Amino acid sequence: MNSFGKIFRTMIFGESHGPYIGVTIDGCPPGISITEDIFRHDLDRRKAGQPGATERVEHDKPEIISGVFNGFSTGAPLTILFKNSQTRSNDYKKIKDSPRPGHADYALWKKYKGFNDYRGGGCSSGRLTVGVVAAGVIAKKIIDPVIIEAEIIEAGGISDIQKAVEQAKNNMDSIGGKITCQIKGIPAGLGEPFFNSVESVLSHAVFSIPGIKAIEFGDGIQSSLMQGNQFNDEIISPDGKTLTNHSGGINGGITNGNEIIFTVHIRPTASIGKPQKTINIKTGKPATIEIEGRHDTCIALRMPVIIEAMAAIAVADLKFINRRIS
Amino acid sequence: MNSFGKIFRTMIFGESHGPYIGVTIDGCPPGISITEDIFRHDLDRRKAGQPGATERVEHDKPEIISGVFNGFSTGAPLTILFKNSQTRSNDYKKIKDSPRPGHADYALWKKYKGFNDYRGGGCSSGRLTVGVVAAGVIAKKIIDPVIIEAEIIEAGGISDIQKAVEQAKNNMDSIGGKITCQIKGIPAGLGEPFFNSVESVLSHAVFSIPGIKAIEFGDGIQSSLMQGNQFNDEIISPDGKTLTNHSGGINGGITNGNEIIFTVHIRPTASIGKPQKTINIKTGKPATIEIEGRHDTCIALRMPVIIEAMAAIAVADLKFINRRIS
Amino acid sequence: MNSFGKIFRTMIFGESHGPYIGVTIDGCPPGISITEDIFRHDLDRRKAGQPGATERVEHDKPEIISGVFNGFSTGAPLTILFKNSQTRSNDYKKIKDSPRPGHADYALWKKYKGFNDYRGGGCSSGRLTVGVVAAGVIAKKIIDPVIIEAEIIEAGGISDIQKAVEQAKNNMDSIGGKITCQIKGIPAGLGEPFFNSVESVLSHAVFSIPGIKAIEFGDGIQSSLMQGNQFNDEIISPDGKTLTNHSGGINGGITNGNEIIFTVHIRPTASIGKPQKTINIKTGKPATIEIEGRHDTCIALRMPVIIEAMAAIAVADLKFINRRIS
Amino acid sequence: MNSFGKIFRTMIFGESHGPYIGVTIDGCPPGISITEDIFRHDLDRRKAGQPGATERVEHDKPEIISGVFNGFSTGAPLTILFKNSQTRSNDYKKIKDSPRPGHADYALWKKYKGFNDYRGGGCSSGRLTVGVVAAGVIAKKIIDPVIIEAEIIEAGGISDIQKAVEQAKNNMDSIGGKITCQIKGIPAGLGEPFFNSVESVLSHAVFSIPGIKAIEFGDGIQSSLMQGNQFNDEIISPDGKTLTNHSGGINGGITNGNEIIFTVHIRPTASIGKPQKTINIKTGKPATIEIEGRHDTCIALRMPVIIEAMAAIAVADLKFINRRIS
Repeated sequence: MNSFGKIFRTMIFGESHGPYIGVTIDGCPPGISITEDIFRHDLDRRKAGQPGATERVEHDKPEIISGVFNGFSTGAPLTILFKNSQTRSNDYKKIKDSPRPGHADYALWKKYKGFNDYRGGGCSSGRLTVGVVAAGVIAKKIIDPVIIEAEIIEAGGISDIQKAVEQAKNNMDSIGGKITCQIKGIPAGLGEPFFNSVESVLSHAVFSIPGIKAIEFGDGIQSSLMQGNQFNDEIISPDGKTLTNHSGGINGGITNGNEIIFTVHIRPTASIGKPQKTINIKTGKPATIEIEGRHDTCIALRMPVIIEAMAAIAVADLKFINRRIS
Repeated sequence: MNSFGKIFRTMIFGESHGPYIGVTIDGCPPGISITEDIFRHDLDRRKAGQPGATERVEHDKPEIISGVFNGFSTGAPLTILFKNSQTRSNDYKKIKDSPRPGHADYALWKKYKGFNDYRGGGCSSGRLTVGVVAAGVIAKKIIDPVIIEAEIIEAGGISDIQKAVEQAKNNMDSIGGKITCQIKGIPAGLGEPFFNSVESVLSHAVFSIPGIKAIEFGDGIQSSLMQGNQFNDEIISPDGKTLTNHSGGINGGITNGNEIIFTVHIRPTASIGKPQKTINIKTGKPATIEIEGRHDTCIALRMPVIIEAMAAIAVADLKFINRRIS
Repeated sequence: MNSFGKIFRTMIFGESHGPYIGVTIDGCPPGISITEDIFRHDLDRRKAGQPGATERVEHDKPEIISGVFNGFSTGAPLTILFKNSQTRSNDYKKIKDSPRPGHADYALWKKYKGFNDYRGGGCSSGRLTVGVVAAGVIAKKIIDPVIIEAEIIEAGGISDIQKAVEQAKNNMDSIGGKITCQIKGIPAGLGEPFFNSVESVLSHAVFSIPGIKAIEFGDGIQSSLMQGNQFNDEIISPDGKTLTNHSGGINGGITNGNEIIFTVHIRPTASIGKPQKTINIKTGKPATIEIEGRHDTCIALRMPVIIEAMAAIAVADLKFINRRIS
Repeated sequence: MNSFGKIFRTMIFGESHGPYIGVTIDGCPPGISITEDIFRHDLDRRKAGQPGATERVEHDKPEIISGVFNGFSTGAPLTILFKNSQTRSNDYKKIKDSPRPGHADYALWKKYKGFNDYRGGGCSSGRLTVGVVAAGVIAKKIIDPVIIEAEIIEAGGISDIQKAVEQAKNNMDSIGGKITCQIKGIPAGLGEPFFNSVESVLSHAVFSIPGIKAIEFGDGIQSSLMQGNQFNDEIISPDGKTLTNHSGGINGGITNGNEIIFTVHIRPTASIGKPQKTINIKTGKPATIEIEGRHDTCIALRMPVIIEAMAAIAVADLKFINRRIS
């Protein structure tokens, strides 16, 4: 279940405070040039250090342990590990019995009957997105010349993102954000009708990222306020090019040859410095917690590269699924 | 690919103007009471006839051809057929070479190299949601006592839906809509971390429905404008009940025991009475088309029951996947 | 679960005494010429009427209800129905509580808690292989110019098959058989290492056919009696051609460009005319049953075409899975 | 593709001469007691050192890097690594262009267009079965009290296995073997009709093991020589117990509550000391190779524990799939 894709399959594993997190890619074609440094740029984009991002800086050095030989993918499953070096597990002991509001602590405790690794969010930690970013780097090579670009356009509801973050930090509080993603150069005909529409597949991938609360394709919410006459995109050339792109490059779940555009909305970081009320699940009594660990003011800041990775993974799989049609 | 679910699997087939459309459910447990009349209520809710819905009225009589014996599910694959009786295929011949704006005509023609059944949207017609509704009726029985309720709350941006539809009809135009869905009584612990988060699975199912352009969970887009302190839901009892429900019943991709709430936004109907510009894909020259067929003014009107069905299908599957944890 | 394949997916449904049985093929490429008569030859090969085969003759007329338009596959799910016309359900009422030895009656009753359609073997009836044969016809077109040929080479342990059948018939008893299958012209490089070896995929498909008790690849059982020096096939040309073919065209789970050869062994028909002892599952007391229905003396006689179909379905899927490697 | 199972999913990765091989188990329930020493017994059974097994002795120390916390499975993906410490890659350089007869060298080279890691069989090396054995240890805990026992009953066609191995060793040759496996205490009702029959699922898993050329269920090949009257197992008690067990515990693809019995036949080890003829794929000219690396005289000797592991993995998944039927 913890994998994505039918032909180009990405599986992640690991927990925030375990020895390693990692990713396995199954179905990667052979002959793709892969060295450890191709991951650097995207991993750095994800890494802590930007204004508002957590002070926990992992070096995120990829260790490729299978699927690459002499600098090229072999075609066999490709596994990449990342060491968890800077974990401070003691931070989390106090909150073991007091699930943090806005976190998955309670839900995971319930699901796994108390056996889950509660430290740092365990298996649902944002830390696991390191593996997603690494898989995305490979997926981007596979879908070339399709280009995927995501950027944050709002934090806390305003476009001056640095200002928004500073304000929230001063309040010991956190904020959310809004990110747009464009998939350029994507050919017409990808996606499968009905249960594997492009929107289904992309949203499935994107909602795997912790903290996303909404996704819009093309004009999204605005669409519901338009009339058909305004919304329908006029086709202006035999290659399917349209005059406008309200539908965001997808009709009936299939790419139409125009750019895919989607927008995601991210909740404020769950961990905040302020004291919060919760319940003690052992005693059943109210409790107040203060989260001392390191945390981002705005998780959305790190997300553009993760969203690009998820989109690339999804497009790579759709591309290979469509290969049956020669 | 054209199926949904891992254990409770729904597959649909058929084309708008073929002899039948249908659905096969694989993984249905035995012993569920199923007769042809249990589908009536939900099929009627989906059926044409409401203000703004198309005049094509199918009788939508389910023919169960496998998987039911003596009034109960057998546990074997359950197939239900629906005859397509009121097709007027001639309506579509004229538009064969002139893809309709806002429809999947061009995308499907490209994907399937011209072999797709272009009549009435073919395999991507909204007609196929009849099978989804039927599967939803069974899924609702399986997830009982979980209750799923969706309703349209806006059409064309206003809450007086009848008025919005009449206006659009007078303009020979179409409008979109906004639907909320509540999943009540859902236990904590459903969903799988990361790639099969509840949001991933629900959005995957929901975006299979043609015409949906956005989905929000809990406070959705509004979340990105809140501060962590406001957004985090205070846990007030040992069963996970929260004081507020900004997160919509899901944390870290797992249900937390509170109601799931999501909202979808639907584009205006693609087929409109007004003449529209497009291209002739054979000659490469501009063309003008008028869509004479029957069509809804607002497809969102029929959708609440389809969204309920998709949500029920998704929850049924999540329930069975979680059964490994006894 | 009741489907086979990842990209070229075959799903069957129906029960022996329901109104229809059928098959849905998902992932069929568009543009394949399909009319109802292309199925005739293989369906006839499977049909009753040969010496030793049951007297229940179904007309097995395929009704294509989706996925074909103007004589070609559309690329959308392709569903074919077959009416069950000659059912005599009364034959089975007597044995409802007395599971037939050698049949799945007891196992299905237990699995499905008594809700299974027990008539004629229900969902595990050999009747369902009609759908498999139909899917095989399409798969054979897809894998062309690969040729698959199966033939029965022994019945009841002897090669004079007609004689073996007559003897068994006179004894009111049944016999088994042995079938070889050759897959000619298959390119090197199909199959996935480890969990989806060619042997894994082919055996999975073949063991779906009721009544098969063993499969051998290449020299099969004989292999275990040879020495490495004898068994290893000498490679004699740069296209991988080998001097001998002990390994049956597969090394390390991947096709090596030589012919695939496998052999299956089929048990005697479970239904026999002789009285048999069993238990009454309601009373717990011993019972004696006589099976009056129609039944084959040797089910293996009909099986070559079913085995060909299963092999073709498996090869078609392996071919499409391998397409990621351009 | 390189995974097995729908709910209890096993994925292996790594190459014979890479830094690590490993296994990820997804869908493991929480609360299973797991420490590194529970793997020792089965890993030792698999390990080299028996008469006839290769001299390459890996320490096979499992490093659990995710999915276990405080000695219990967490329910999240469980990854175990094994270091490859004793690789002598130089042994393989000479044979790079001369595919070894009986090995997958040629097939993998062709499939992966020359990018495969050819050292030591790369991704199709028997070395990868270490991960399978580890997964099997966990699966055995899950299916408890079901017991799986496999043993080698013949090598080179005789039951004095030590003698057979010594003879072959003296000849610088290799031999095959025959292994039986019993699954005791398995409840009735596991398996899915048609495409996921118990035979389909077990054979799929078992044929993933390199070198297996045949599998028989119950009386297997012998079945085809029997008459129905002899083969059908008389049911003697209401819990499905049968007087004989010719069918090997499975009817119509579903377990019937009796012991599952299957037999596998293994080819002689592909690597032998004797010089062998092959082709040079670069020059197209005949070549003679001598395989100097370490190799087993009889790979079948190590296989019983691997077969047990595969059977346990398959049964664990069938058990969870059946859980939808409460």
